[in-house]
Amino acid sequence: METFEPDARLTRNATLIANLGLCQLRIVDDSRWAWLTLVPQRPDISEIFELTPLDQTMLTFETNLVASALKNVTNCTKINVAAIGNIVRQLHVHVVARNEGDAAWPGPIWGFGDAVPYADEPRRRLADKILKALST
Amino acid sequence: METFEPDARLTRNATLIANLGLCQLRIVDDSRWAWLTLVPQRPDISEIFELTPLDQTMLTFETNLVASALKNVTNCTKINVAAIGNIVRQLHVHVVARNEGDAAWPGPIWGFGDAVPYADEPRRRLADKILKALST
Repeated sequence: METFEPDARLTRNATLIANLGLCQLRIVDDSRWAWLTLVPQRPDISEIFELTPLDQTMLTFETNLVASALKNVTNCTKINVAAIGNIVRQLHVHVVARNEGDAAWPGPIWGFGDAVPYADEPRRRLADKILKALST
Repeated sequence: METFEPDARLTRNATLIANLGLCQLRIVDDSRWAWLTLVPQRPDISEIFELTPLDQTMLTFETNLVASALKNVTNCTKINVAAIGNIVRQLHVHVVARNEGDAAWPGPIWGFGDAVPYADEPRRRLADKILKALST
C-alpha cells in the first residue's frame, strides 16, 4: 500500500486544520472568501469515481459536514462545492462560502484574480470556529 | 408533499435525457464541452447538505455513475463536478468533460463566454452514447 503524500500545491497555501476520517481539511490562504479544501488521503486518485464506493460515501459525508459547518459559521449566501482538478490532478474538493457582492460574485472563484493572504489571527479565528462547528 | 418542478432556467437550455432514481439528467445546450446537469427531484433544496442522508448518498452514486460514463464516452482530460448555484438556487450538479486546450482551459467554464448551441444530430449522438454507457 502506498503512503499518502499530498501534492505540494495543495499544502503550500493551505493550512491543515483537521484530519477527518478520510480527508485532510485545509483553509486556503485567501481571505477574499472562506475557502476550504478536503483532500482524501488516497494516493493516485484524480476523479471521485476512482475512489471505492465506501470512500465515495465517506467523502460525501465529510464534504457535507464541512459545508454545513461553513454555512453556519459564515452565514454566507451560498456554498460552492467543486472537484475540478484541471491544474492539480490529485483529488481535492473545494468548499467555499460565497456572498452576494464578493469580488467574483456570481462567477466562480477558481482562477479569479490574486489571493489576499490572511493575517495569522483571522485565519486562526476561522479555523477555531469551523472546528467548533464540526464538533457540535 | 410538494411536487417537484425544476427551475425554468435549468430546463430551458438543457435537454432531459434520463430520469435516474433521484435526479433528472440533462445535456446543457453548449457544444464547447460535453456538459451535463443532474437535478435532484426534490423541491426547495439549494445545498447538498439539506438533502436527507439517503438522498445525499443517492446523489453521490448518480453523480459518479454519470461522471464515469461521461469520461468513458469522451475520453476527456478531466471531469469537473460542481454544485455552485449562485445564480439558480435550486440544487443542481454540473458534470463537465474538460480537455486540455478547450476554450476555458484550465479555468472553470461557468460564466465563461457564450454558449454555442448544438445542432440536433450531435446532441442526439452524445445523448445516445451517454445512455448506452450508463446502461452497461
